[in-house]
Amino acid sequence: MSSIQIVEVGPRDGLQNEPDIVSTADKLEMIERMIDAGARRLEVASFVHPQRVPQMADAEAVIAGLPDRKDVSYIGLTLNKRGVLRALATKEGGRRGVDEIGCVIVASDTFGQKNQGQTVAEGIAEASEMIRFARENGLIAQVTISAAFGCPFEGDVPAHRVVDIARAVLDAGPSEIALADTIGVGVPAQVTDLFGRLSDFVPADIPLRAHFHNTRGTGIANAWAAMAAGVRVLDASLGGLGGCPFAPRATGNIATEELIYLAERSGIAHGMDLDAAIAANRWMAGILGRELPSLVARAAA
Amino acid sequence: MSSIQIVEVGPRDGLQNEPDIVSTADKLEMIERMIDAGARRLEVASFVHPQRVPQMADAEAVIAGLPDRKDVSYIGLTLNKRGVLRALATKEGGRRGVDEIGCVIVASDTFGQKNQGQTVAEGIAEASEMIRFARENGLIAQVTISAAFGCPFEGDVPAHRVVDIARAVLDAGPSEIALADTIGVGVPAQVTDLFGRLSDFVPADIPLRAHFHNTRGTGIANAWAAMAAGVRVLDASLGGLGGCPFAPRATGNIATEELIYLAERSGIAHGMDLDAAIAANRWMAGILGRELPSLVARAAA
Repeated sequence: MSSIQIVEVGPRDGLQNEPDIVSTADKLEMIERMIDAGARRLEVASFVHPQRVPQMADAEAVIAGLPDRKDVSYIGLTLNKRGVLRALATKEGGRRGVDEIGCVIVASDTFGQKNQGQTVAEGIAEASEMIRFARENGLIAQVTISAAFGCPFEGDVPAHRVVDIARAVLDAGPSEIALADTIGVGVPAQVTDLFGRLSDFVPADIPLRAHFHNTRGTGIANAWAAMAAGVRVLDASLGGLGGCPFAPRATGNIATEELIYLAERSGIAHGMDLDAAIAANRWMAGILGRELPSLVARAAA
Repeated sequence: MSSIQIVEVGPRDGLQNEPDIVSTADKLEMIERMIDAGARRLEVASFVHPQRVPQMADAEAVIAGLPDRKDVSYIGLTLNKRGVLRALATKEGGRRGVDEIGCVIVASDTFGQKNQGQTVAEGIAEASEMIRFARENGLIAQVTISAAFGCPFEGDVPAHRVVDIARAVLDAGPSEIALADTIGVGVPAQVTDLFGRLSDFVPADIPLRAHFHNTRGTGIANAWAAMAAGVRVLDASLGGLGGCPFAPRATGNIATEELIYLAERSGIAHGMDLDAAIAANRWMAGILGRELPSLVARAAA
């Protein structure tokens, strides 16, 4: 294992549950700070209904303000075709807009219906159509299988179902397939198993990506297991943002700082600057008015 | 990997830095709760000078109050021969006392001199003498190589030094050899490397034990790497106690709850009851007047 790519998802997954609206200017500063820290792929917004996720209501404004860097790829999360149209609209009139859309298929009927109003089968059909439509219109389109390690309603998610979803969506030609432990229940043995199963049939030119939450303290262990299983692209959020702020006990995504630390001390290239990420953490803590979960940042105090 | 043993170190390593003295009765309740939760080896006290570690000043009183269980092994930490004599004294007059002593060799001259007034060489000599003396007097004696993954003063600790220490102390006949990441800087690749090196020459009848702190979020990843490297005995503390309470940012030992969760969901027998550990966490949080670091316990709220 020689290098990984860290996808900064703080501006979207990290912030989306924050009850107090973070200003567009502060979101842009967060994005710029993480680019300065070395991030070259960032999930910057989601194209969802503003009443469902008020924190993402300024998606178009954030995207309009993004630095026009050729070496950075901006990802917009889309849950339906309307979202893809909004993503495409950000590029109209010669504007930069987003580079990639991220689609989601929930690996549980119950969770999928509550989260997106879709069964697994409906999710596969919708994401496949979105991917095809986005590609035809010049956007990179990747897909995440969420709740792949467990469902808050159904409990265990069978590995064969995750495999079946990945097989089914492959036909649409996603640029990348991710497995997400949306609720942070996974353990390394499961990570090794699931990514191993996908590696058996996903073509080598379609990278696998891993998305972990540290809800039960296993996030970095899972990241390590994913890296050991050959996964080279991992999501992380600045400071470990992304928990549910209404439940201050819960932590969020694995922290970018922890993933940098893990890679750095393991001799794995990661392209990021830990000190700059920690400085961004301190700045963000000031914006949100509380300490962020990252332990690496705390230890550096 | 079919089973692990979790050594509960909360009553000693977990509590020793707490600024407010926990009463002897509360320490005993903590110990009893963890035995009820399934712990069968517990580090219950340290025989150090009460002025150095005031929280451990009641070591003899705690030990006098321990449940007289034949299926439980009680460990007392000893840093010198005077400590071993105190450990032996707990058994005088037919009393139960401690079953094991834990000796420590610090893998860094600078840290060793600050912590125990000993260079590495002096530490090896002292621990070897303590182990021999304890064994001659009927006590089980194990040894921990601390700061094995890094030193707060010297930085990197060369792997060959850790190997040399383990080789040297083997002659004294320790019952078990542990590697401790005292300051929580280690990463899984280092765990795999160090325990792999030790496995090459430590006889199979001398188990290896792992002791991790979660200071930088890598503790559970390291525990998983140790288990994958064949380590079957791991230290953990209730709630993840054991940080420096004067620096509330720092976390402590890996949490017993997290280790139970990791083993449970990985299909590895651990002999413990997660719900009982979480109940003990809630009780302890009440005693200390603050939430404990364990994320598994928080997620269960």
